[in-house]
Amino acid sequence: MIQSATLVGIGTGSPGHLTRAGEAALRSADLILVPRKGAGKDDLADIRLHLLEQIGVTAKIAFFDYPTRDENLPYLERVARWHDEIARRWQQAAGPAAHVALLVWGDPSFYDSTMRIAARLTDQTNIRVLPGITAVQALTAAHAIPLNTVNGRILTTTGRRLREDGWPETAETVVTVLDGECSFQSLRGQGLYLWWGAYLGMPEQILDHGPLDEVTDRIIATRAEARARHGWIMDTYLMRAQAAE
Amino acid sequence: MIQSATLVGIGTGSPGHLTRAGEAALRSADLILVPRKGAGKDDLADIRLHLLEQIGVTAKIAFFDYPTRDENLPYLERVARWHDEIARRWQQAAGPAAHVALLVWGDPSFYDSTMRIAARLTDQTNIRVLPGITAVQALTAAHAIPLNTVNGRILTTTGRRLREDGWPETAETVVTVLDGECSFQSLRGQGLYLWWGAYLGMPEQILDHGPLDEVTDRIIATRAEARARHGWIMDTYLMRAQAAE
Repeated sequence: MIQSATLVGIGTGSPGHLTRAGEAALRSADLILVPRKGAGKDDLADIRLHLLEQIGVTAKIAFFDYPTRDENLPYLERVARWHDEIARRWQQAAGPAAHVALLVWGDPSFYDSTMRIAARLTDQTNIRVLPGITAVQALTAAHAIPLNTVNGRILTTTGRRLREDGWPETAETVVTVLDGECSFQSLRGQGLYLWWGAYLGMPEQILDHGPLDEVTDRIIATRAEARARHGWIMDTYLMRAQAAE
Repeated sequence: MIQSATLVGIGTGSPGHLTRAGEAALRSADLILVPRKGAGKDDLADIRLHLLEQIGVTAKIAFFDYPTRDENLPYLERVARWHDEIARRWQQAAGPAAHVALLVWGDPSFYDSTMRIAARLTDQTNIRVLPGITAVQALTAAHAIPLNTVNGRILTTTGRRLREDGWPETAETVVTVLDGECSFQSLRGQGLYLWWGAYLGMPEQILDHGPLDEVTDRIIATRAEARARHGWIMDTYLMRAQAAE
């Protein structure tokens, strides 16, 4: 039975994102659980294995497959059942191992479900979290821009919520994650400025930025083309009411 | 004259926060600029030097002193003039060195002025940003909690703004940074839940959490006592309308 889980934030695909603490945890792990593939993102399992290889980790690796989600269920219930099933598969893959480690894309605390899955198997006090570089941090670093304006507020939202809510009054900067639909296109005509990035930190990295009204069509086309070529895409973006800080 | 600046996010004081890319950049730097002291936070310069020592960096180090801010100026102008003066001192400290590196607390893009100072000396394309673990990430990791609720929004704000704005309607989670006044105390009686941390990632780390109404007085006392003992404190916190995700 799994008794403890170490969740190592690995950043967004660049081995340079891994922290010293993350590297040490992977080196000393008894067993590392690695997903075989992730909903059309087959490359991501390979990136994890490649990272372990690059840093010379020799821990035992056990693979598990992601289940499919039941699209007939309401959103929150669908997610909960999916997490239950992943937890079951972790347990199965871990076998007799009591202490497991997982490589978590980005940061385990930031829009990631690994912690919620681990909480189904062990007490929260047995979950060790090592933070990692998020796609948002890789985005601002790649563009060499601050995330916040001076004394400003930042709203982090999802594509779904951005489409529902529109531009908020309570923040100078808006960051969007989990957006497969270029939801920024719903904000045309409001004088916004956009910084976008895909495959952040990876050799395939693509960046674009400019007034939202001018760059929206170009980014939609770039994204569709890149997604078709690679078979998957991960992207994120931030927006401000004006380009100047 | 400084022609390029590499800003290395070092996290919040734990050598384990440093990324592989950050470590490589510090090792290959021609010159590292280190502040001698930071507005009552004398320990922070020592932490930077200790980090360089621990990872065995042998690059040349040049020190600069932080100027004091002119409290008679309006906020934004005061900050701008302060940055101008720091840029001048970097230049002076760097001497003939053209390429400098700086150790930035947390992440250079997250509520930090180093990038804005560097932009006074060189073109943005000559500023290289290596992201680092923020205090917010160290907070959620230490508590082993997600930053966001499922499909939820996060508002990151400052102590000043939180006091002005109150609890926002547009986010399920609120993170506060740059708050020297325990501004969460202005949100009593609203059924909020609070997770707090100081000296995050350091041996001195202190954590607390609970219903805001119950923990506020305790945290104010803990913070005052710790600040008096260490001579400085850095803390951050997050709040949600309810403890459950």
